[in-house]
Formats: sequence, structure tokens, C-alpha cells
Amino acid sequence: MNNTQTKQTSFPHVVIIGGGFGGLYAAKSLKNAPVQVTLIDKRNFHLFQPLLYQVATGTLSPADIASPLRVVLSKHKNTQVLLDKVVDIDPEAKKVFLEGQDELNYDALIVATGVSHHYFGNDQWQDDAPGLKTVEDALEMRRRIFMAFEAAEKEDDPKKRKALLTFVVVGGGPTGVELAGAIAEIAYQSVKDDFRDIDTTQAQVLLFEGMERILPPYPEESSAHAQQALEQLGVDVLTKTLVTNIADNSVTFRQGDDTKTINAHTILWAAGVKASFMGKVLADRAGAELDRAGRVIVEPNLSLKNYSDIFVIGDLANFAHQGDHSLPGVAPVAMKEGEYVAKLITKRLEGETVKPFEYNDFGSMAVIGKNKAIANLNFAKFSGFLAWIIWAFAHIYYLIEFDNKLVVMIQWAWNYITLGRGARLITETPSLQLEIESTPHPGNSTPNTKDSIQEPVSV
Amino acid sequence: MNNTQTKQTSFPHVVIIGGGFGGLYAAKSLKNAPVQVTLIDKRNFHLFQPLLYQVATGTLSPADIASPLRVVLSKHKNTQVLLDKVVDIDPEAKKVFLEGQDELNYDALIVATGVSHHYFGNDQWQDDAPGLKTVEDALEMRRRIFMAFEAAEKEDDPKKRKALLTFVVVGGGPTGVELAGAIAEIAYQSVKDDFRDIDTTQAQVLLFEGMERILPPYPEESSAHAQQALEQLGVDVLTKTLVTNIADNSVTFRQGDDTKTINAHTILWAAGVKASFMGKVLADRAGAELDRAGRVIVEPNLSLKNYSDIFVIGDLANFAHQGDHSLPGVAPVAMKEGEYVAKLITKRLEGETVKPFEYNDFGSMAVIGKNKAIANLNFAKFSGFLAWIIWAFAHIYYLIEFDNKLVVMIQWAWNYITLGRGARLITETPSLQLEIESTPHPGNSTPNTKDSIQEPVSV
Repeated sequence: MNNTQTKQTSFPHVVIIGGGFGGLYAAKSLKNAPVQVTLIDKRNFHLFQPLLYQVATGTLSPADIASPLRVVLSKHKNTQVLLDKVVDIDPEAKKVFLEGQDELNYDALIVATGVSHHYFGNDQWQDDAPGLKTVEDALEMRRRIFMAFEAAEKEDDPKKRKALLTFVVVGGGPTGVELAGAIAEIAYQSVKDDFRDIDTTQAQVLLFEGMERILPPYPEESSAHAQQALEQLGVDVLTKTLVTNIADNSVTFRQGDDTKTINAHTILWAAGVKASFMGKVLADRAGAELDRAGRVIVEPNLSLKNYSDIFVIGDLANFAHQGDHSLPGVAPVAMKEGEYVAKLITKRLEGETVKPFEYNDFGSMAVIGKNKAIANLNFAKFSGFLAWIIWAFAHIYYLIEFDNKLVVMIQWAWNYITLGRGARLITETPSLQLEIESTPHPGNSTPNTKDSIQEPVSV
Repeated sequence: MNNTQTKQTSFPHVVIIGGGFGGLYAAKSLKNAPVQVTLIDKRNFHLFQPLLYQVATGTLSPADIASPLRVVLSKHKNTQVLLDKVVDIDPEAKKVFLEGQDELNYDALIVATGVSHHYFGNDQWQDDAPGLKTVEDALEMRRRIFMAFEAAEKEDDPKKRKALLTFVVVGGGPTGVELAGAIAEIAYQSVKDDFRDIDTTQAQVLLFEGMERILPPYPEESSAHAQQALEQLGVDVLTKTLVTNIADNSVTFRQGDDTKTINAHTILWAAGVKASFMGKVLADRAGAELDRAGRVIVEPNLSLKNYSDIFVIGDLANFAHQGDHSLPGVAPVAMKEGEYVAKLITKRLEGETVKPFEYNDFGSMAVIGKNKAIANLNFAKFSGFLAWIIWAFAHIYYLIEFDNKLVVMIQWAWNYITLGRGARLITETPSLQLEIESTPHPGNSTPNTKDSIQEPVSV
């Protein structure tokens, strides 16, 4: 492919790296702009990350929350989707280098490659405690959760059986809360009649959080509601709990001064994220400044200090020009940033400028179990079923394609009625190791992020 | 697990190996019988095989056509489901040996482990031409089909691009016909607006059949209708065509006297099946007689000649006591055989006998594309849309769980309206090699099947 020519002919060429919320919404917003757009992603689909935990816990299928990028953008005649990996860039020559020796010239570059799991320097924990970022991660979690019950049904040794029925979720953020709630529902409701030699209601589900309360960024009231709702579902919530080691199906953790170790066959990681590979590339090639997690510190207009034609959006960006801390790594922020950069590029072509990016936070939500949630909106706080309704509609609304919405709503309704887990298939997935190796993250060995690696494992 | 004790206490113990149509319907039919049932499967779900090609071609998700065995049988209090592999049996001691050193005593044994791909002694073709039996097979086929278009979009070399856009299906049985029709629809309809540098309507879809017509067991009229419908969709149907080699993304085939080789990046195998591992075990341990494909030749009551307490049903059984050839390896036969054996076992406990198994063939069906089919029923022949309606209802009716039915109907309706392929995501799946190695098939190296290995590759 010689895009170097083809893309130079007519319109300015905007290259977008990453088809997540940031990259996709940037592309969508450029539909009618006088530009040629190339969206590059190493997967052929946009993944609706906020519902990924429902794939991991057997409620939804991957296809329910994934939309092929080509389908979403097929009507965008100025846009080409490329299934490829970006390996390097040259900001002076304005080139992007792809895995297969191909290269693209760009007039504007939008980097939206997001973040991956962060084990705070303990990458050896990956195998024992997988994280949740990709479809393969979700299917691997699903496999582990449901295999644990299958193995317990065949296990005579009470000690081993107990370990098989012990589930630990590390990290009390939204993902950890959602995973813990869903696993409790599986053990205590969905599968309780399905086994003959074990009582799944004897299973133990633990949620570890390093701070003094779960959902730390939320108001205390919301955190309290969330903890209460989780405990009603049967989750043991351990706050001020630091994981010091994970190995051989056991977790060692510190609470205050005493250190404990419990045997748990299923350990899930929802504790930390680190910048994806492109953060390092931007630092090396374009002198981008990275924060401790390797995220790119951007200008008020989301561009790089030294390169006004390179923009970083979404989870990979650290935008701290508003409020006292950087914006959270959530879908709504990424969407708004994508739309903003698309507008900036369009205006710039008309010789106009736009004012710095501003984000109006409409609030945050986390779901607990099948029908409870915490909705902390900027005009009011909700919890319980009402919050769940708000959560459900907000998520359904943003599910890219109509058929996904319809199918997901039906799956939810059906699960709601039956407590069923239609998608609880145990399938073979590549080891998480493979998945992680396939995307190198040298970022975590750069000076920029060293301190974050050295810091104690506060989850 | 020490089932040897636990299962001996009260009722006679019926052990069923395999949770496909045969095994599942046997278990369902024993719900109220005075027996204790153990259903063993190496997967935790029943797979609705007849729709697997729709997973392979991106219409459905695995969970849409899979039902967790525990859910289907959760109300059967006399039934335990075990996720395990049977490695051997001892018909004298009436024992089944499981992978994990566990063993089960049985009073009656029902073997329903089905068949796997058969490459007629050319197992080296597996990697180049995967078959379609498991969920992983289907996801691997899906990956190859959709990756081919992605790679073509990036390919400059016209020759390579042509090979990437050439799809060969080997085998003109129902599965081959259904795959070829679906791939033609993908190339000529579903994805035609999604690419910028390639014209997917230039793709070539070939269907190879060794006999003089596709769907050989069907009436000539049906075969003709099927071929006509496929050609309307754009499939090149090559009959009297024998594949002589598959290697390096190319297929060599013989038509009459001339031999051709074409470059095709995607080659799918729908040509032959061979008995699963248990066939060999029954031959070695119980002196069962196997046919050329390694299937077990059963008595009129589906038991083994030497062991009236061992039954073989479904695709693994060769039942030739009715009509002039053995019953076809299709779901309806397996279901009826499962129900029959369940009844026989129940009656036997009451000291009664039942008359030999009889199968009333209601006919056979194959679907071509989205809205055409061939229905060859014993009272009438249908083709086109009407046949498709019959096909759709017959399949929906047998989808085990209601939520599957509902979701599948919606997916179909949606695809029907939009020509969409909602489930076209490309995910990482283990290489087919792995999948096949995970289930050894010594059967194909036994004298019983040698001739079938030596025979020319008639597809």
C-alpha cells in the first residue's frame, strides 16, 4: 500500500490512531469536513468498554458490545479504516509508520490509543490476576469464573474446594465494584441450582480497596451506598487493604499492621492502568511530557507543546487545565475530546481558532449487581434502582449500533427476569500473557513512570 | 471426587458421555426415570451445531447457539453434569475413567461423542483448511474470512490481492453449501460499502464437490435448485472436482483429466467426518465393530453386540437396520436415538422390552444464503423462500433455551433487513491445531478405517 501518495492528492490528511471512544468520535465528527481521514486500529471493531464486565461475567456476548469500525464509518466516504498497528512516528516528516513497512503522511495526527493494565511493577501477577481491557481479557475472566465452579463440583478436598469458591477482585473503582457485584450474583443466584456436590451460596467474594472507601473519586455518600449494596449482595468489602503479593492462587494483603494471605483460585485485577505504547513513542519522538502513569500531558487545546498538529485524546491524555486534577479516564471525556479536536482541525483549515477544551462533567456512575447503581450527577445524587435505570439508559443510548442496543436490552431484560447467564460458555482463549505481549508497553520502564512503578501497591 | 461410592447408593446409575443432541435428549428423557444420571462433556455447554456456520460467518455469537448444560438440566434433580473428559472404559467392571483419575461406575452407559473432521489421511491440510465442529473452529473461520478482506484492503500486489479475495469451500454437503452461500453474501452484499481500496464484489467464492452434484443424498431436483440458488448469489459451483492438494494458500484439484491449482487465501473444509476417540475405545475395550469412518456399528436397539448395557447414539453410531444405508449424521436422528435409549433403559428396569429402533425421516434441509433453502420433506419438496421459512422455524423450534431463540430471531430479522453482520469481530482464537490436538483421534490409524484413509480424496 502506498498511502504516501494516495492520501496526499486532494484534501489534508487526518490520521487517527485508535478506534476507541476518542478516536471514533473524532472520526465521526470529521464526516463532513474537507479532509481525508484514516482511522487505524489493531482491532476491526469499536469496543464498548463500559459493558465489558458483563461479557466477563456471562451476561453479554462480545459482539453485543462491539461494532465493526467499518460498519460504523461505512457512510463516511472521506474515511478509510485500516486494521494495522502503528510502530513509530516522525513528527518532523509528519509520518506514521505501520507494522507492515507501510507509512502514512499526515497533516494532523490524533493519538487515542488509551491505556492498559498496570501492575505497579509486579507484572508477574498478570497470569494469576488478569485485568479487563480486551474482549480476550473478558473471555478469559469468564472462563476462570465459571471454571472455578466446575472444578469445585469435582473437588473432594474441602480446603481446595474453598479456594476454588473464593473470588478476589483487586481494586474498588467502578470496574472492581461492577465485577464483584456480578460475581456475587452468579454465585448466590444464577448458578445456585446448577450443581449437585457443592453449595455455591457458600462461595466468598472479596473486594480489596487501598483507600479508606471504595469509589474514592465519588462523594462519600455514594461510596457508602455502593458498599452497602455490595454487602447486601454478599460481597466482603475490605478497604484500606494493600495487596503485597499474588502467587499460586493466593493473595497476600496488608490491613494496617497485620498481613494476611488467603487462598483464592480466581483473582481479578481492576486496580491500575498505565499508558499504552504510543505514550512512550510521543515522548521519544515529539518530546511529549508524560505523567507518572505514562499518560501524555497535553496543552489546553489537547495538542503537544512542541507540535500543534499532534493531538492526544482519551485515556492516554492527561488534561489538567481545568479543576485541580486531570480529567478521569472515562468514555464521556474521550468522546468530548474527540469532538473538540475534530472541530479544532476543521476551524483551523478555515483559518480560525477555537477556545481551549472544556469538559462539563455530567457526573459518574457505577452499577452494583443487576438492578442497583450509584449515579453521582452534577445536579443530584441517585442510588439503588433509580440510579440503575439512569445507568442503563445512558449506556444503551451510547451503544453505537441499533442492533446492539436491541439485543443488549433483551439480554438484560431476560437476565433480569431469570437471573440467567445465557453467555456463560467456557471457551478457549489465548493466555492473557499472549494478549499482553502482543502490545509492548515499554512505557513502564521509562524514567517518566519509574516512580509509579516504585510506589507501594496501593489499590 | 469419589463418585464410585456416591452413585452406587440408591438408583441405577446411567452415565452419558457427550452433551450433543443425542446425549442431551437421552438425559432429558430420563428426567422422571428411577435412575441417577451423570452427563459428562468436555465443554460446559450444548452447542446447536446446525447454526454453527452462522457464527463462522458473523451473523450469530457463540452464546446465541450454545446453552449451558447445567442450565438445561438444572431442574433434573436426578442428573449431575460433569465437565470432564472420558479417557477409557472397562465394560466388565462397568467403569468409566475420567481424565483426573476419577472413575464412575455405571449400570448403563450411553456413548454420544459424535464425530470430528476427516481429512482422509491428509491431516497436514488442517491448518490451511480448517473444518467446522467447535465454537473455536467457527471463530477461527470467522477470523480468516474477515481478515482476508482487511489484508486485501492493504495489499498492492494485484495477484496477492486476488488470492486474498478468493474463498474456497471444500465439500458440497449442507455445511459446505451454507458456508459458500453465506460467504458470497458477505462479499457481495454485507461488506461491499466498507472498504475504500478494494471492490469486494470482485471476490470469488468457489464450492468444490466430488460427486456429480452438490447435496448428493438429496433428490436431483433439490440439488439443482441449490446449485441455481448458489450461482445466483455468485458462487462458482465445481462438481466432479477432487482436491488433490492444499498447501501455502493454494488448492490443487482434478476435474476429469485436467488438474488445476488456484491461489486462495481462505480455504474451508466441509468434506468429511471421522469418529471421535470413543469409537476406538469401544472397539478396543468392548470389541465394538467400526465402519470405515470409525463409527460404531450398533445393534437394532442401539446397543453393542457384546454389551447390552452399552449404547451408542448420534453421529458416532452406524445404524444400518433400516433402509439400505445407515442413518445420516444429523441432529434429528441423534435426538430420536437419545429418546429411544432413555425409554429402553426405563422399560428394562420394569422388566419390559422395547421393539428395535425405527427412525421416521421427516426429510432434510439446507439453507442457501439469507432467505433461500432446500427443504426435502417426505411429503413434499420445497425450495426458495418458503423452504427457508420452514428451515428457520424448524431450527428456532429446537434452539434449547428461550432466550437463545428470541435473540437469534432478532439477529436474523435484523440481518435480514440490513444485510448486516453484527458479529463480524475478529478475535484471537487458539490455532485449530491446538483444538484438534486437544482431542486425540487414534481412530484414524486403526485397521478399521485404513481404507478410508487410503481412498482418493473424493469430496
